[in-house]
Amino acid sequence: MNFWFSENHTPNVKISIRVDRQLYSGKSEFQRIDVFDSPEFGRFLTLDGYMMLTEKDEFIYHEMITHVPMAVHPLVKKVLVIGAGDGGVIRELTRYPEIEHIDMVEIDPLVVEVCRKYLPKTACRLDDPRLSIHYEDGLKYVRFKENEYDLIIVDSTDPFGPGEGLFTREFYGNCYKALKEDGIMVNQHESPFYAEDAEACKRAHKRIVESFPISRVYQAHIPTYPSGHWLFGFASKKYHPLKNLDETRWNLRGLDCRYYTTTLHKGAFYLPAYVEEMLEDVEGKY
Amino acid sequence: MNFWFSENHTPNVKISIRVDRQLYSGKSEFQRIDVFDSPEFGRFLTLDGYMMLTEKDEFIYHEMITHVPMAVHPLVKKVLVIGAGDGGVIRELTRYPEIEHIDMVEIDPLVVEVCRKYLPKTACRLDDPRLSIHYEDGLKYVRFKENEYDLIIVDSTDPFGPGEGLFTREFYGNCYKALKEDGIMVNQHESPFYAEDAEACKRAHKRIVESFPISRVYQAHIPTYPSGHWLFGFASKKYHPLKNLDETRWNLRGLDCRYYTTTLHKGAFYLPAYVEEMLEDVEGKY
Repeated sequence: MNFWFSENHTPNVKISIRVDRQLYSGKSEFQRIDVFDSPEFGRFLTLDGYMMLTEKDEFIYHEMITHVPMAVHPLVKKVLVIGAGDGGVIRELTRYPEIEHIDMVEIDPLVVEVCRKYLPKTACRLDDPRLSIHYEDGLKYVRFKENEYDLIIVDSTDPFGPGEGLFTREFYGNCYKALKEDGIMVNQHESPFYAEDAEACKRAHKRIVESFPISRVYQAHIPTYPSGHWLFGFASKKYHPLKNLDETRWNLRGLDCRYYTTTLHKGAFYLPAYVEEMLEDVEGKY
Repeated sequence: MNFWFSENHTPNVKISIRVDRQLYSGKSEFQRIDVFDSPEFGRFLTLDGYMMLTEKDEFIYHEMITHVPMAVHPLVKKVLVIGAGDGGVIRELTRYPEIEHIDMVEIDPLVVEVCRKYLPKTACRLDDPRLSIHYEDGLKYVRFKENEYDLIIVDSTDPFGPGEGLFTREFYGNCYKALKEDGIMVNQHESPFYAEDAEACKRAHKRIVESFPISRVYQAHIPTYPSGHWLFGFASKKYHPLKNLDETRWNLRGLDCRYYTTTLHKGAFYLPAYVEEMLEDVEGKY
């Protein structure tokens, strides 16, 4: 059957994925939620028609947003995760025995329910006893937190729709406050390639640079995201993502990853010239 | 107008690019050649319906296939370029004054003619006096060369159709012979992500490992190629791509690049775990 899901990456370029079956379609208070099964990518989740994750390449995103800060911070005990209803970040975090507590703040309970049912490969650790799930707006949740977390992971959707508030100066400022004195915040940072994504990326970077003393950007190859070239933000009060990377300590853990290695960690911060320029441009402006 | 070019990256995933106009369509003895104008990517060239380059992202491919070996080899005087009818590799090579002679071996004169006319941004240095263009089969041309080149760049199409012979053991062996005792060969190496491309990639790597004492693979983000995650092979008789990288020397040249930097050079060799495994698997097999 000729049955395709398409997503416009810009008005002038789109990706299309052949679908076997639509497994779920529903609408929450916040967004439309769909799950499809596909021959190339296995199951995949879309929110308001935008690709969130596929079973085939989600490991790249989830490993890179989690293990990069975990290989830098010497002792993470308490983590705040914003968004992440699919459970992928939680799956990676729960591999670390020293983590004592994780607060996950997801605005949409239906996302979690749907992922538990249809995406067990990512949602498999949502019953970990160290995890508390809060169905709230992350922007509001973090306002009342102070000096509490070692690590905040912002696994947001794009900077429009329900995820919009998670790209504001107020939000980053509150994350700073919610972190302990040596805390790290990591966020998904859009793509540098297409003009509109690059603008979102610059805007986010500017606001993070204004909020944190250390703010660096790193990259990964994520084939199902626009352009395949995706960025993450590493914002920190004390630790530098390369100078404080402890390769030996992380490698002694023996965690088996499919994308992340401590060598790749370093390379992920070595950005193309045009991306460096884009970021420096923003850094110089404030 | 709703006018789109689509390319299947696998039978189950495709990219579509909105087209303004088709500027050229023709058929040579070897392949079908088309040039389109598009709002997102500017002009782009396809051969037999496969994307070869777009004006928007060709800088990534051409900088990465050229400057990586040029920043490692201490003195490149004579270069052999196989394929490269669009002129992008020649444009980058002619920025180096120490290069005395370039032999470019392109099987299809019509590709060069069409690129000169419709893609002046890449074909702009095809009249450089140091360049000799040979309209021949690269596989045959290199058979009769011995101890002649400092650098060979294999800018081939995919490992089927006219480019097929450029992925054979015989070809790599002849390249080895054609190189001087400290020569380097760089080739486009397909993508590690989709199964069929990954197989091509492993096959090529195996054959190069068998032919050269040093064989490493590096990566770049090329949005219009399948998965956006593209690999290059660095095969060498003497120089190691990282240990012999001379950052200071290259940076003193003051060449202005949009993707390549000597820092990114290092990161490009730090591959994801699954790609490392795929390559090691092949290396162990012979």
